[in-house]
Amino acid sequence: MAHPSRPVRHFASDNHAGIAPEALRALVDANHHHAPGYGEDAWTERACEVVHEIFETSCQVFFVFNGTAANTLALAALCRSYHAVVVHRRAHTESHECGGPEFFTGGAKLIPVDGPQGKLTPEDIEEAVRRRRGDMHFPKVRAVSFAQATEHGTVYTVDEVRALAGTARRHGLAVHMDGARFANAIAALGSKPGDVTWRSGVDVLSFGMTKNGLAAGEAVVFFNAELAAEFEYRLKQGGQLASKMRFLAAPFAAMLKDGAWLRHASHANGMARRLGSALAAIPGVRISQPVEANFVYPVLPQPAIDRLREAGWQFYDGYEAGECRLVCSWDTQPEDVDRFVSEVRVQLAV
Amino acid sequence: MAHPSRPVRHFASDNHAGIAPEALRALVDANHHHAPGYGEDAWTERACEVVHEIFETSCQVFFVFNGTAANTLALAALCRSYHAVVVHRRAHTESHECGGPEFFTGGAKLIPVDGPQGKLTPEDIEEAVRRRRGDMHFPKVRAVSFAQATEHGTVYTVDEVRALAGTARRHGLAVHMDGARFANAIAALGSKPGDVTWRSGVDVLSFGMTKNGLAAGEAVVFFNAELAAEFEYRLKQGGQLASKMRFLAAPFAAMLKDGAWLRHASHANGMARRLGSALAAIPGVRISQPVEANFVYPVLPQPAIDRLREAGWQFYDGYEAGECRLVCSWDTQPEDVDRFVSEVRVQLAV
Amino acid sequence: MAHPSRPVRHFASDNHAGIAPEALRALVDANHHHAPGYGEDAWTERACEVVHEIFETSCQVFFVFNGTAANTLALAALCRSYHAVVVHRRAHTESHECGGPEFFTGGAKLIPVDGPQGKLTPEDIEEAVRRRRGDMHFPKVRAVSFAQATEHGTVYTVDEVRALAGTARRHGLAVHMDGARFANAIAALGSKPGDVTWRSGVDVLSFGMTKNGLAAGEAVVFFNAELAAEFEYRLKQGGQLASKMRFLAAPFAAMLKDGAWLRHASHANGMARRLGSALAAIPGVRISQPVEANFVYPVLPQPAIDRLREAGWQFYDGYEAGECRLVCSWDTQPEDVDRFVSEVRVQLAV
Amino acid sequence: MAHPSRPVRHFASDNHAGIAPEALRALVDANHHHAPGYGEDAWTERACEVVHEIFETSCQVFFVFNGTAANTLALAALCRSYHAVVVHRRAHTESHECGGPEFFTGGAKLIPVDGPQGKLTPEDIEEAVRRRRGDMHFPKVRAVSFAQATEHGTVYTVDEVRALAGTARRHGLAVHMDGARFANAIAALGSKPGDVTWRSGVDVLSFGMTKNGLAAGEAVVFFNAELAAEFEYRLKQGGQLASKMRFLAAPFAAMLKDGAWLRHASHANGMARRLGSALAAIPGVRISQPVEANFVYPVLPQPAIDRLREAGWQFYDGYEAGECRLVCSWDTQPEDVDRFVSEVRVQLAV
Repeated sequence: MAHPSRPVRHFASDNHAGIAPEALRALVDANHHHAPGYGEDAWTERACEVVHEIFETSCQVFFVFNGTAANTLALAALCRSYHAVVVHRRAHTESHECGGPEFFTGGAKLIPVDGPQGKLTPEDIEEAVRRRRGDMHFPKVRAVSFAQATEHGTVYTVDEVRALAGTARRHGLAVHMDGARFANAIAALGSKPGDVTWRSGVDVLSFGMTKNGLAAGEAVVFFNAELAAEFEYRLKQGGQLASKMRFLAAPFAAMLKDGAWLRHASHANGMARRLGSALAAIPGVRISQPVEANFVYPVLPQPAIDRLREAGWQFYDGYEAGECRLVCSWDTQPEDVDRFVSEVRVQLAV
Repeated sequence: MAHPSRPVRHFASDNHAGIAPEALRALVDANHHHAPGYGEDAWTERACEVVHEIFETSCQVFFVFNGTAANTLALAALCRSYHAVVVHRRAHTESHECGGPEFFTGGAKLIPVDGPQGKLTPEDIEEAVRRRRGDMHFPKVRAVSFAQATEHGTVYTVDEVRALAGTARRHGLAVHMDGARFANAIAALGSKPGDVTWRSGVDVLSFGMTKNGLAAGEAVVFFNAELAAEFEYRLKQGGQLASKMRFLAAPFAAMLKDGAWLRHASHANGMARRLGSALAAIPGVRISQPVEANFVYPVLPQPAIDRLREAGWQFYDGYEAGECRLVCSWDTQPEDVDRFVSEVRVQLAV
Repeated sequence: MAHPSRPVRHFASDNHAGIAPEALRALVDANHHHAPGYGEDAWTERACEVVHEIFETSCQVFFVFNGTAANTLALAALCRSYHAVVVHRRAHTESHECGGPEFFTGGAKLIPVDGPQGKLTPEDIEEAVRRRRGDMHFPKVRAVSFAQATEHGTVYTVDEVRALAGTARRHGLAVHMDGARFANAIAALGSKPGDVTWRSGVDVLSFGMTKNGLAAGEAVVFFNAELAAEFEYRLKQGGQLASKMRFLAAPFAAMLKDGAWLRHASHANGMARRLGSALAAIPGVRISQPVEANFVYPVLPQPAIDRLREAGWQFYDGYEAGECRLVCSWDTQPEDVDRFVSEVRVQLAV
Repeated sequence: MAHPSRPVRHFASDNHAGIAPEALRALVDANHHHAPGYGEDAWTERACEVVHEIFETSCQVFFVFNGTAANTLALAALCRSYHAVVVHRRAHTESHECGGPEFFTGGAKLIPVDGPQGKLTPEDIEEAVRRRRGDMHFPKVRAVSFAQATEHGTVYTVDEVRALAGTARRHGLAVHMDGARFANAIAALGSKPGDVTWRSGVDVLSFGMTKNGLAAGEAVVFFNAELAAEFEYRLKQGGQLASKMRFLAAPFAAMLKDGAWLRHASHANGMARRLGSALAAIPGVRISQPVEANFVYPVLPQPAIDRLREAGWQFYDGYEAGECRLVCSWDTQPEDVDRFVSEVRVQLAV
């Protein structure tokens, strides 16, 4: 379905990539006999155990269809309608979920905060809490939600997570981590998943796997069991309880087994580094954000951007003038990177 | 994962069955190169076209992950928070979606109606409308929602649909059809899909395919374009916009091609007839509902029910005393039916 | 504004009556100088203290504008969107708040129960809890809500309240009492307000005063402090935080002082007894519900009902064939009762 | 309840003032006989007529208890859950209604815009619409809501309203005016109410009267009848349908009769001018916003602010460093102004 002379893999989004082989194999293997619905099957049980192993704790695990659902239902578990959540202005929750958090919480308010490299700071939380403390005329700050890796392709260090979560907890706030690209963050940090999450004070994680190679499927992982109470009802009511859940759970588990999830994420991160280094070496190209996960943000002249598009390349731009977002995926190949870089060189030289 | 001597296919639900071969093949085939996300891909475009062909009209088609989502988002498109929807007491919307319709509409009230064989009648609608007409102290009836096939395994004739929808429209009500088992209904009726829906006055259909052989995936099909306005925002906000939508759309389209969906549904219906006839022939067994789609409701003595369960068979019971629900699937085999019938004979003879 | 020969006080509803003199005097007296808004004033502080005295406990008190608000916000404090509340089928919450409970809870389901004399029984609660226990496909029963006095004009005894609330608590349910006519119930029982509520296991009371003589104004009274947490935010968000709250609080307090609330309710109850006895003595009139508070439900022939209306009398009918609802108010006069009874005699004799 | 040597009227808010004499008289007069509930009474009918006269059009009028309710229910009538509303950052809807708009709309997003003097501009609307046009990942801009007078005490000219509303309509947006202080705006402009509203393109107005002299009571006035459809159900469900509505409607009507509402607002505006001029004449005092309605925003040194508070004066500060908000009411007296100004002089001289 692609023009033969045009690229077949792009840098538009990691959700443009397909299904990773481990996931597809698991899906096919799970297609066997009858299995009880709604998560009562053996594959789902096993997938939960694998998540426990990865995080070294008996957390509560719920599979949902996509990232918006994971984030919005997690926030709904934390917040009443009159609560507020501190987020980064370019967080997915604020800018790309069409008001999903407001909808699922019944009206909670997101308090967007600016900050370099897409990261929240403890000071942002302090300031948000302080500003309207005890004032019932404004929603009460109840949670902080941040992405790991961020929408800027940066990664919070374990110390940064600990500082954020520590500040949150001092103010009685719950801590949600949007891990749509959690694998990329873990691959970048080389840390244990438990260290970046519950050991640092995270209450609930949206553990994404779609972008890393599933057809669909994320997990909501509660490290704070109290917050998970009755969550299965919320899932069902929210249209996120899969009847044939084995087809979400089996591929999810397969990705976690033998480290496939980290291999794929590592590969995507590596492709981003390769892409970032090569672009940075081109005169006239500036890289606007640190390349820590699978994103590269080069700033290019608008005519060059237009010509790259004409040549068939797909990617997003327009965050700030000339800033482009390039995303590497589990299936990005070195030759994709090299072809794109060559094309940038050509288009800049015009 | 099943004990060798125990049945591997059951009669508990058609969602215990796996993925039909046509769907699986399409999913594997779609796993090729990069594709734009959120429905901007060629597979989704093609799938919409196939739905248009099936219904012989240019309806609005939206793919979602599951049936609860299809029903609740469709009702949310029809109703404000202060509206009411007439449904059957045993409708999925009323009894098995954990208040999803109330949640997604922001509070609309379901008005459950009893009635034989799981069917609503025009009189039910008249009565619901009449009872509190013009009384702002009670939600205003705005829609009627009914399942085709019903949760009792019965099927509305085209004339029945026309009568229901006609009555609804005379009172200004919108008409929603829950087609979780639409394929089974069409296979049973032998009618054109368009005749059972828009030509009879249905505004929006939840077009199910999960129970008929997908891993996950249903379509919300609007025949009334005005009601579909802005529905894409609702989908996104509701956590039902798949990023890698090709993996929902391609299998869906594959099921519709060359009549696979009707072949599978026909097969399931046929297995139900075989099962129903065989059970009805056993002295002491009464079949409580007409066998028109893929359900059989035999009434059995409780000890027999218990012993069937001990023998490893999975199914639901308890609707009325001794009433069991047996569901046939696209993959139910004649030998499954025959083994089960034999087992019933044995257990009744004890 | 009333035709001279027509009645000026009716039996349609106790909310057709005006403002009681004690309340009006307090409102005028509070209209003095400036006072802080939103409940930070001295009148509101004093009104809360008076409520504490009445209930002999330091409950949490919040003033709202009307009964629908009191009930729906109280239920919203008890329930998440996927919860269910057991109510009587003719409860105000179910039948006269236009889906307010569903709206304010974000989708919780009311489970309506039939039962004689408008009362719930412990068995109703047991049955509702048992039916779908542990089944995430149906909302989880979380609360029971019942009216004291009921919409049938009956009154729960202290033992009945204790039995209901005890059953609720054994199942982990919260207990809400809709006290739109709490004064009438207390006047009827002659019990201490604390005995009928918190000492019997009630968690939260909608303490009505509009029907008993205020222009507007009810209190939500939490005996369970934990459930009241953050309720002030909910009030504000829900449009129920009065800016000039002294004009709600001062009349409320005035009604409670020196027993005015009970005097007025007692009077209304007495008028109902007078009305009930006189009607019961008329051949051909049946009283369908016990007259325990300020309601009388006579069953009359339809032509007599029509002629009473033609004569200018206002009341509701139609619950069951010929059943009329007559409500006495704090301002109903013996001559109103006697005139109405005479008229019934005349119209029955036609 | 006030210390004799301390001020009895303050500059904290116009909702600290009491009930205007015309309103109180009407309330007492309406307390006569029985009247049908829920707006079916003669006073409510008359009040609607008076609003029609004031606006010279047969608009739809609904009385509610307070301003938060008027704003949030009006916005709920305009917006679905996935819509967005352009507002000023310091608008009451954004900053002082505890997420009420988000709650009543089921999740709609407010898009706060900065701008001098608390005013929105057509460019703000253009920019908000343009930024995410056609992008279903972000709520669709559906309405603009602005306050007249603004929270800064400024007043939009008729031309400004026309320009805003015209831009909104060009983009298919509905236009809501928050008229919590509409009387002050009309008094300041000397324009006809119809010219500032429907003739300039306003669809719905929150017509405030509490701050101008009622105990409680605002009207939602729809000039666009289509948007008012079924609004009575929304009111009832939202807990804003007064049972004894005559006590909202009669005082409201009384304020509108013989221009009382404008006399009171004019007086408050005049007191603000007197206060603003006197303060501006004090060396070291800067007035940060134009004094067009009943607000004065002087910037004072923090120690002077503290000493004014110690002397018993009540007002808000802290918008920007040293910026105080002083609000004049219908009952503010020249001597209140003069006493306060003297006190400022004294405290600045310390």
